[in-house]
Amino acid sequence: MCVVHNTHQDLALETADAYTLYRDELVRAKLLIPSGVRGVYGRGGVFEDVITKFDALVSRAGAEMKPEVMRFPPIFNRAHYEQIDHIHNFPDLMGSLHTFMGGDSEHKAMLGKFERKEDWSRDLAPARVMMTPAICYPLYPTAAGTLPEGGRRVDLQGFAFRHEPSDDPARMQIFRMHEFVRLGTPGQALEHRNYWLDRGQEIFRSVGLNTERVVANDPFFGRGGKVQKAIQREQNLKYEFVVPICSTEKPTAIGSSNYHLDHFGSVFGIRTADGAVAHSACVGFGLERVALALFKTHGLDPGSWPQNVRDVLALD
Amino acid sequence: MCVVHNTHQDLALETADAYTLYRDELVRAKLLIPSGVRGVYGRGGVFEDVITKFDALVSRAGAEMKPEVMRFPPIFNRAHYEQIDHIHNFPDLMGSLHTFMGGDSEHKAMLGKFERKEDWSRDLAPARVMMTPAICYPLYPTAAGTLPEGGRRVDLQGFAFRHEPSDDPARMQIFRMHEFVRLGTPGQALEHRNYWLDRGQEIFRSVGLNTERVVANDPFFGRGGKVQKAIQREQNLKYEFVVPICSTEKPTAIGSSNYHLDHFGSVFGIRTADGAVAHSACVGFGLERVALALFKTHGLDPGSWPQNVRDVLALD
Repeated sequence: MCVVHNTHQDLALETADAYTLYRDELVRAKLLIPSGVRGVYGRGGVFEDVITKFDALVSRAGAEMKPEVMRFPPIFNRAHYEQIDHIHNFPDLMGSLHTFMGGDSEHKAMLGKFERKEDWSRDLAPARVMMTPAICYPLYPTAAGTLPEGGRRVDLQGFAFRHEPSDDPARMQIFRMHEFVRLGTPGQALEHRNYWLDRGQEIFRSVGLNTERVVANDPFFGRGGKVQKAIQREQNLKYEFVVPICSTEKPTAIGSSNYHLDHFGSVFGIRTADGAVAHSACVGFGLERVALALFKTHGLDPGSWPQNVRDVLALD
Repeated sequence: MCVVHNTHQDLALETADAYTLYRDELVRAKLLIPSGVRGVYGRGGVFEDVITKFDALVSRAGAEMKPEVMRFPPIFNRAHYEQIDHIHNFPDLMGSLHTFMGGDSEHKAMLGKFERKEDWSRDLAPARVMMTPAICYPLYPTAAGTLPEGGRRVDLQGFAFRHEPSDDPARMQIFRMHEFVRLGTPGQALEHRNYWLDRGQEIFRSVGLNTERVVANDPFFGRGGKVQKAIQREQNLKYEFVVPICSTEKPTAIGSSNYHLDHFGSVFGIRTADGAVAHSACVGFGLERVALALFKTHGLDPGSWPQNVRDVLALD
């Protein structure tokens, strides 16, 4: 046991170093711009260009299913947040927005705390918005009611926030996902999830990323979370596309394809044309993580990437 | 006086109606998607496409000055926020991010409050990030030190947050700006501000928006803010490009070109090559507001916009 334990420790140390080393390489190459907060970076123009081009590739692939296109901002309705169990399951990842709602005298009091370097944030009040934890969440409340015959397919892209400060450049606190959501019958949702398991793999391989598909779970919080992780795995609801970025032992998920059963349908009152509670599924491409995987696999200068990868991405 | 007062009241009512009417038109046309929170919307695909195309037009115009391209996310370092006087000048607009940092027992206590519909947000702790109030703010701390000979020009685009719930569709709580920032000598900063006053006007007119340029001020908070507004106007630091959207009496700012003097240079220790404190200026294009002005001016269907406007925007 002890040997195994030591080996794990060494492995953890090696991996931590690998994360920091890659992050520092990215910063030196001006691909990422540090902000002084772990996991929060500016993006250099070359990094951003790779994201734009991969995003366009994914859009073209999704256009085959003629989706509605919608874009939701990085914040969403607190009342909707309170309906989706995120506070139960992932409280440590949440971002709650607070602002100052007082008048001149309350302002003076808050500034007094600020000047004395006390905690002035207690003088704020919660705004009616939260950070968007997953970019498909804001969609579901807007879909309340009865779906058209055949259900709906939606193309989404936007920022998600997760409070998990880390030196792993792939574990950003704010990052973009491109998602395709299916709302409809259980069969339609499951077909979507499975279609994208294959199509996603094809897309990643077309840019030289040899992803593997693995059964996965969400990072449920606390002691109770262990049970939920096991149940989610047992039901084979979530698959991730993983590829080594900083570690071959612990490859990074750069996409996932998930079946939500009727979770969102029942919470937000979404029904199929024949009156049943709608089921949903979504595939998500983690744009920053894909870029990080591309730079790791092909090198920090896209000008010297393999020509076939440059062609697929339409890099010019 | 009374008559004037009544007239103003009528005008205010009319304008409020005009805002709500236009917002409802946009929602019916699926250009904006309501979220249940005032000033927070999803964007439909057609709305987003207009933004993408105008954004590209602005990028091409800015490319003439060969800027560095950087992209900062919607959140930024709280420590930097605390250096820029925003808490003094615009506390009512801020977005402070809070999250849950406790363990299982604190989680249970917070969930108790949540279930009893009490204010659970008091159990959160401030995260090390704030919402980005203006998309050039995150740039300045990264520019600390000595600028290269000739200073710097930077192309930025991203989301800004301002907590000002409103029924005016042009007063969103979260929106994108495309900005070009100049860091250098006072002469270089002022030349940039003035160059963009003309170039910005040209760009707007090329898409059929007859903007006017007006001296403007930022919305400084409270009683003390009145003096600061007057000083800012007197110094002619800020110009806005305004155009009627819902009201001809109160046209909407869809862009601005600003000279910051040495404000950011002195706060973040940015110096010119010869050792003086750097001055800065920036021009900003409000992408959602530009789209709203285009839809108001040319109609809700871009397919029927004037051909010259469609050509300039490369709408296809």
